[in-house]
Amino acid sequence: MDTTTELDRRFMAACIRYSRRHLGRTGTNPSVGTLIVADTGDGPVIVGRGVTAVGGRPHAETIALAEAGERARGATAYVTLEPCAHHGRTPPCAEALVAAGVARVVAAATDPDPRVSGNGYRILRDGGIEVVSGVMADEAGSVLSGYLTRSARKRCRLTLKLAVSADGMIGREGEGQVPITGEVARAQSHVMRAEHDAILVGIGTALADDPQLTCRLPGLGDRSPMRIVLDSRARLPLESRLVRSIDLAPLAIATIAPESGNARHLEGAGARLIACEEHEGRVALPELLEDLAALGITNLLVEGGAGVARAFLDEGLADRILLFESDVRIGPNGIAAPVGRASLPAGYVPAGKWRFGADRCFEFVQEK
Amino acid sequence: MDTTTELDRRFMAACIRYSRRHLGRTGTNPSVGTLIVADTGDGPVIVGRGVTAVGGRPHAETIALAEAGERARGATAYVTLEPCAHHGRTPPCAEALVAAGVARVVAAATDPDPRVSGNGYRILRDGGIEVVSGVMADEAGSVLSGYLTRSARKRCRLTLKLAVSADGMIGREGEGQVPITGEVARAQSHVMRAEHDAILVGIGTALADDPQLTCRLPGLGDRSPMRIVLDSRARLPLESRLVRSIDLAPLAIATIAPESGNARHLEGAGARLIACEEHEGRVALPELLEDLAALGITNLLVEGGAGVARAFLDEGLADRILLFESDVRIGPNGIAAPVGRASLPAGYVPAGKWRFGADRCFEFVQEK
Repeated sequence: MDTTTELDRRFMAACIRYSRRHLGRTGTNPSVGTLIVADTGDGPVIVGRGVTAVGGRPHAETIALAEAGERARGATAYVTLEPCAHHGRTPPCAEALVAAGVARVVAAATDPDPRVSGNGYRILRDGGIEVVSGVMADEAGSVLSGYLTRSARKRCRLTLKLAVSADGMIGREGEGQVPITGEVARAQSHVMRAEHDAILVGIGTALADDPQLTCRLPGLGDRSPMRIVLDSRARLPLESRLVRSIDLAPLAIATIAPESGNARHLEGAGARLIACEEHEGRVALPELLEDLAALGITNLLVEGGAGVARAFLDEGLADRILLFESDVRIGPNGIAAPVGRASLPAGYVPAGKWRFGADRCFEFVQEK
Repeated sequence: MDTTTELDRRFMAACIRYSRRHLGRTGTNPSVGTLIVADTGDGPVIVGRGVTAVGGRPHAETIALAEAGERARGATAYVTLEPCAHHGRTPPCAEALVAAGVARVVAAATDPDPRVSGNGYRILRDGGIEVVSGVMADEAGSVLSGYLTRSARKRCRLTLKLAVSADGMIGREGEGQVPITGEVARAQSHVMRAEHDAILVGIGTALADDPQLTCRLPGLGDRSPMRIVLDSRARLPLESRLVRSIDLAPLAIATIAPESGNARHLEGAGARLIACEEHEGRVALPELLEDLAALGITNLLVEGGAGVARAFLDEGLADRILLFESDVRIGPNGIAAPVGRASLPAGYVPAGKWRFGADRCFEFVQEK
């Protein structure tokens, strides 16, 4: 019996928005939201709120229950993900909700982790709690999708980001970084970086643009994720900005030549070498995404260039595409975008659109 | 029908010894061995050998098949772990063995990864290969045990190492590092460090001894794994040797105070903060081992001090204990060893013993 009300959906929507707060900052744990809502007589009131702590511990439920205290008794808990069910030194969240006397749990996504899946709900029901699951699961899943991909498919979730000019270009041959989008979009793309665990570019982009790929958010400080260069032959120069900024953010080199002289120098300079499977002289991409997941990377942002974007698209590995469009024209010697709104591969559906200053951003996700 | 011969066991024993070569250097993939043995008419000859490459790719089978070439046709392949069965860009090893025309596969351990378990053998049999599995699985498992623990139990495997004096001490109050074992044992303990993905010490040891915990092997260069300090309140000083040597090996701080001022400074100096679950004011240890596994750490070496050793022992989390015993006497003000050969917790069985110069080393593992 579905006992969900419109009020439940409104609290869940708030809970999902809240859960986004620590996206990219919870390590290998998902950024989950919890709201505890008690009926005070004057109607429902939020008495506890939690989002997975920075670093991934404690979990959202623990934080929300601590805030609610005695007011959790008889209350409804909204959770964006099934509460965890397996024992460590501290009791699993499902047991904590029972112990706190919560009367009802409204949950969005089910956890695919086999130690949890269904067991979290079972512990709640065995404890006498009314459980409604699957409420706004798709919306919650958009925040949790990296975690869900990594748990279920053992690989990280890949977002491909491209800025395309009015004439369908992503840059100009031999000119390094050419501004396509304006300041608002660029600020926004730093927020997007911060929501990912790693940013990847190809060696072509690294050599042509010499980017630093760090991420500073005004007022929030340094939020730089790991930088990864897809660099089959390990050619990244030691004097590149990526290497010189290694004290600002970790740097990894995905390569099939981890024993080469330059690879050894890069390792000596503090870069991490990721030894990759080779396919026709290049890094085998599905295996790389699997190995990155095993290293704790959940959300990967691919920022270019055209060759790398095309390679991931050709293998069907881009779970999500973010297309920035601007009114700038690149003109002669432009580098054609590997994909545009009119030329998306089959299977992508629109998932969002925004306006950032004069620029537009379109989000597409792979249909399940 | 078990068609294993004495010869099979001898080749498998060689294969297991060979598989050890890259232990600690294969990232999140296990260090697996493969030998391909062809009957040349003059008896069996090894025509291909492989061990998982440094960094984890390519896999052992790929390397051994490349060396064997056409001689793999009709040969027997010895593998310490079930060949992988899931597709990336390159074919899984089970298919590669079929394609190479191998006639027979003798395997030790079965892979607990649900994408592989049994499927590797099935692909081989479907391809007409005779498969014998489980040959010397325990011996192979001693090399693979980190991987097996991480796959099956979602936590890293923990080895506790202690050097105990003749009078049952591990150090002297207030004196920092006191030499207990001799040079041979110390060199050997560096080899042990190199076989692990991370070394952990408590903040007490970090403050008292100011260790560097790096690992240089003569002739093999720097093999330092990640250093982890169990540091609930994030007290590690910025001027400690651990922080000052951050360019030699990564440093992580496992803490329940990741937002404290000193934690922020440590992060700024390049240390990674691991936000931990709290239990009675300290880091919750089972959750930590789970989070370390999610970060790609398979084998963890705990080097002290007494408090940390006791904490892991009390929680039943030491999968393996390495006890070094020396003839040195510490005398007054000694710090008593938390465990000795005569006072092991229940459930440990002897697994090996060695003599290193004047010192002895005893290995115990938890009974399954």
